[in-house]
Amino acid sequence: MKANKDTNNQEDSSLKKQDKTFGMPRTDLALEVRETFEDDNVEIQGVILKEDYDKDKDIRVSTVVIKDQRGADAMGKPMGTYITIEAPKLKESDESYHEPITSEIAKYIKELAGDTKGKEVLIAGLGNREVTPDALGPQVVDNLFVTRHLIREFGSEFQERHHMGNMSAISPGVMGQTGMEASEVLRGIIHETMPKLVIVIDALAARSVHRLNTTVQITDTGISPGSGVGNNRKALNKESLGVDVIALGIPTVVDAATIVNDTLERFMAKQGFDEKQVDQFIHEVNEETIGNMFVTPKNIDESIKRISYTVSEALNKCFA
Amino acid sequence: MKANKDTNNQEDSSLKKQDKTFGMPRTDLALEVRETFEDDNVEIQGVILKEDYDKDKDIRVSTVVIKDQRGADAMGKPMGTYITIEAPKLKESDESYHEPITSEIAKYIKELAGDTKGKEVLIAGLGNREVTPDALGPQVVDNLFVTRHLIREFGSEFQERHHMGNMSAISPGVMGQTGMEASEVLRGIIHETMPKLVIVIDALAARSVHRLNTTVQITDTGISPGSGVGNNRKALNKESLGVDVIALGIPTVVDAATIVNDTLERFMAKQGFDEKQVDQFIHEVNEETIGNMFVTPKNIDESIKRISYTVSEALNKCFA
Amino acid sequence: MKANKDTNNQEDSSLKKQDKTFGMPRTDLALEVRETFEDDNVEIQGVILKEDYDKDKDIRVSTVVIKDQRGADAMGKPMGTYITIEAPKLKESDESYHEPITSEIAKYIKELAGDTKGKEVLIAGLGNREVTPDALGPQVVDNLFVTRHLIREFGSEFQERHHMGNMSAISPGVMGQTGMEASEVLRGIIHETMPKLVIVIDALAARSVHRLNTTVQITDTGISPGSGVGNNRKALNKESLGVDVIALGIPTVVDAATIVNDTLERFMAKQGFDEKQVDQFIHEVNEETIGNMFVTPKNIDESIKRISYTVSEALNKCFA
Amino acid sequence: MKANKDTNNQEDSSLKKQDKTFGMPRTDLALEVRETFEDDNVEIQGVILKEDYDKDKDIRVSTVVIKDQRGADAMGKPMGTYITIEAPKLKESDESYHEPITSEIAKYIKELAGDTKGKEVLIAGLGNREVTPDALGPQVVDNLFVTRHLIREFGSEFQERHHMGNMSAISPGVMGQTGMEASEVLRGIIHETMPKLVIVIDALAARSVHRLNTTVQITDTGISPGSGVGNNRKALNKESLGVDVIALGIPTVVDAATIVNDTLERFMAKQGFDEKQVDQFIHEVNEETIGNMFVTPKNIDESIKRISYTVSEALNKCFA
Repeated sequence: MKANKDTNNQEDSSLKKQDKTFGMPRTDLALEVRETFEDDNVEIQGVILKEDYDKDKDIRVSTVVIKDQRGADAMGKPMGTYITIEAPKLKESDESYHEPITSEIAKYIKELAGDTKGKEVLIAGLGNREVTPDALGPQVVDNLFVTRHLIREFGSEFQERHHMGNMSAISPGVMGQTGMEASEVLRGIIHETMPKLVIVIDALAARSVHRLNTTVQITDTGISPGSGVGNNRKALNKESLGVDVIALGIPTVVDAATIVNDTLERFMAKQGFDEKQVDQFIHEVNEETIGNMFVTPKNIDESIKRISYTVSEALNKCFA
Repeated sequence: MKANKDTNNQEDSSLKKQDKTFGMPRTDLALEVRETFEDDNVEIQGVILKEDYDKDKDIRVSTVVIKDQRGADAMGKPMGTYITIEAPKLKESDESYHEPITSEIAKYIKELAGDTKGKEVLIAGLGNREVTPDALGPQVVDNLFVTRHLIREFGSEFQERHHMGNMSAISPGVMGQTGMEASEVLRGIIHETMPKLVIVIDALAARSVHRLNTTVQITDTGISPGSGVGNNRKALNKESLGVDVIALGIPTVVDAATIVNDTLERFMAKQGFDEKQVDQFIHEVNEETIGNMFVTPKNIDESIKRISYTVSEALNKCFA
Repeated sequence: MKANKDTNNQEDSSLKKQDKTFGMPRTDLALEVRETFEDDNVEIQGVILKEDYDKDKDIRVSTVVIKDQRGADAMGKPMGTYITIEAPKLKESDESYHEPITSEIAKYIKELAGDTKGKEVLIAGLGNREVTPDALGPQVVDNLFVTRHLIREFGSEFQERHHMGNMSAISPGVMGQTGMEASEVLRGIIHETMPKLVIVIDALAARSVHRLNTTVQITDTGISPGSGVGNNRKALNKESLGVDVIALGIPTVVDAATIVNDTLERFMAKQGFDEKQVDQFIHEVNEETIGNMFVTPKNIDESIKRISYTVSEALNKCFA
Repeated sequence: MKANKDTNNQEDSSLKKQDKTFGMPRTDLALEVRETFEDDNVEIQGVILKEDYDKDKDIRVSTVVIKDQRGADAMGKPMGTYITIEAPKLKESDESYHEPITSEIAKYIKELAGDTKGKEVLIAGLGNREVTPDALGPQVVDNLFVTRHLIREFGSEFQERHHMGNMSAISPGVMGQTGMEASEVLRGIIHETMPKLVIVIDALAARSVHRLNTTVQITDTGISPGSGVGNNRKALNKESLGVDVIALGIPTVVDAATIVNDTLERFMAKQGFDEKQVDQFIHEVNEETIGNMFVTPKNIDESIKRISYTVSEALNKCFA
């Protein structure tokens, strides 16, 4: 009706502002943040976007590099490299699709990790084992072939002869179960076992349901507070942990509020409502109904099991 | 803005029509269907509504009786009695709240079952054990104290001396796992074991997130096709099974489409959009994004465990 | 010392008698019964033994055919064919070992099932899902690709075009959980869905710990009362169910009493004790300590998961 | 026959020697070690034994205090206090039995912990979550009400007003899953979070099947290498962790070798065999058959669930 291209753009910028208003990042994916900008071809200063599509495997890899503070401010994410692997077949139950995805994940972990040969790495599976969509991290840890204890027992000659990595792993649990921040548990373990690299695995929240169980984000920035399924954790990055940190995340839920808000915003923008009206209505909706609810596919138990296996395989390929 | 009482009413009636358009019942709760009517005080012909509120226990019991075909048509549900127990504390983790709710559930099962003393009853826990919010039925069955085999072994004198019921139980699984309708499995078992009463337990879909894990519906109409978490099952009622059937259901999910549609409709009605615009927009939204997604609270794994225990206790009270 | 060939033989025959004395079959494997006879080369009337060893795959297949009642009496097992596949690598975690075993299992199921093409088959996963070593049957069912419902929906042309079988599956539970014999549940379902063949999957008790998770027994005799992990179930065979029945079993436990008794017997035989002394001592031992205990490997949870997957694959190969 | 009191005693001392020969402690219970001494009334120098029996609750409490190195050498256990609560009803499914046992456990934890009010305590649930009888520790942790994070957020005033403890908890996993010793993980976490007391929870191996799931051992000596279900862990005690350590253990398995050996020894002793003969035969038996097997009751999955809940309740009573 009253909608036109111009108001539409206004709406979109209101949307970004609103993200801050609500103090809640609606997505953990740098790629989705990038997409909220009006036009994919517009260049954001300090941010580089590179894309690659393998048609045969139906795997798309996007690399967002946030080069400087200006880019970090625009994106609302720390400086660093964010690699996003989009593989719609990751959610398929046909296991033959998973091998190429495993290789792709392993390739990009190596790209960020530098030389992985024999490197002492600690894998941390974040999240709550008892909450299905949050159990990705713990389930990945369950499937790893850890080797650190073997090398400590049999020595470095043994390690070399068997071309073995040096991998340890832990599921630090969530604060409501342990009374400790994941960052405290990990800092303690790192202090004791001195790995050269930490890889944190976590279930993420996405903005679009299309991303659920189809997208892998790998970044050298670690994890910032407030990420994950609505939990407040302290940061897990080089600064807080004192070693290099790679974060690997897969979106397994969309916040129910997000899905409602996004649909409404799209509609209201199309109809030409002004920013204030949108904000107010959405605020009322959220107050009223859908706090602490999330949207997830019906087969989430099965998906988490399968995807965690794929991620474990990739890590085993790099470090076992 | 342009909204007024009249258009508002139009919207609401469009909503009901639309339910049929999409061929998808958005709620399995008779009470929620009743609530979609414009005004709670309006009398629907053929439908009786009775309410009871126990302030101390914070338990509200609503009884909807659909007396004739006219009422059935208006409600889109078969004739019969629908008892809805609303107990917000059912979702609390404090176990002391659960005992009064157990008693309340047992009381209304008995009201519909008639004389329960020593009655041969088969409990059927519908749903998919591997899908958390759909596992309510199987988990209820896991907690029952079945006695049928004891009575067959030790005789009716033993039964009377121990004031024992005669309960058997089965989780018939879902069609995707068994290749059989739950109705086929149950018909077979009923043919072989000849219970006098079947009670089917099922996870339901609600329309409002407030109902999730707080509401118990007990009805003597059994279960009609399309109920539950979006699965197509054939009817489970006296006609199809050949014995009395009571269905006990608890809403554990809201369809993601429902939550979006309801919020949008509310908004559009408020704004005075006409029926056709609403229909078209919502149709587009559904096509686009959120098929096969559901909304569920974050602690659903834990809730299902606790609530299934409460329901089992109520059944044990009646029949064990 | 005092042991000699003669007393030794006496001991062995006492052993067989004792099996009856205690009324407890110590093994569900026909092959192990056959082995209790003094000398593998001795011919038992009415019983044929054939062996095959594939050195490359390290798989040994023994076929025991009990041809007549005399053989059945000698063996304490019903007439029929018992195929035992011994594959030590079945318990290995290396998945590459499992494919050849899958093929072998499928081959012998087909040998007993006759023409499997498009055959209506019902798989029954016996046992208690909540007791790890008894969960083999239910876990096999969880991994099957059932098709019966698809064929009912899309017709036989669809079936032929996709070279599809007609498989349904059920976990009937155990009597303590359902109040019904597995045989009652299955008879009911068979009456309703009319399969041409039933395959029952069950965890067995073996006599030797070497057999645990390494041996598959496939027989066309079904299952007789008292088999499995000490549960009393009524027979599941052609006579009781009214259709052809194949039983596939894998030993997952040894009764604790068995392991103690066997070791003691071996020792006492070696020492030349007479039958009566042995019987009396073993009787005392059993009374005293180890009722209702079983022996199982430490990694049983993991083994059951892996082996059930292998069996499911074999069944999918035959019937999906 | 040839057995007499003298040979019998010889046998027993051979048994103790043999324990060292095989390098495998057959029991983790100080009480069972104490029982291997010929006669309960004989005083072992440096070891004090005190017993208490509550007939109403059917709970027996034995306290073994190893006062000096002489006692430690005789017992093969470190100096300290070992409290053993024997409660046959702990394995019952009737929940009403569990409340008095909870109180008893809480009482003796407090006895060893000294002042528990507001004390910063870290609970460590040792063992492998994926191996049922070894999952006691992780399951105890799952049921705790941790509070440390609340106090850090809301301060000590909040803590005092709510009479709240200061409890944190972790399941450090097993070396095969993490590549790290439990002691390394705990040392790291202790370094970071500085608790005043660590309580380690672990599944133990007993010698007698009567002790399974009926006995709780609480000791201020922590855990020594080689305890638990056959895993080699480094010590968890005040010396290795740098803070006070209480260990709470419940026997959930008997090594299969132990049950066979004990029965054989009893028999051979009765028959008057000499030490060397016994040793040799048992050595052969162990080589041959039953490595890495354990004996466990059939309902172990259910028992672990229930008992872990009871232990959690006791800890919550002391520290939540």
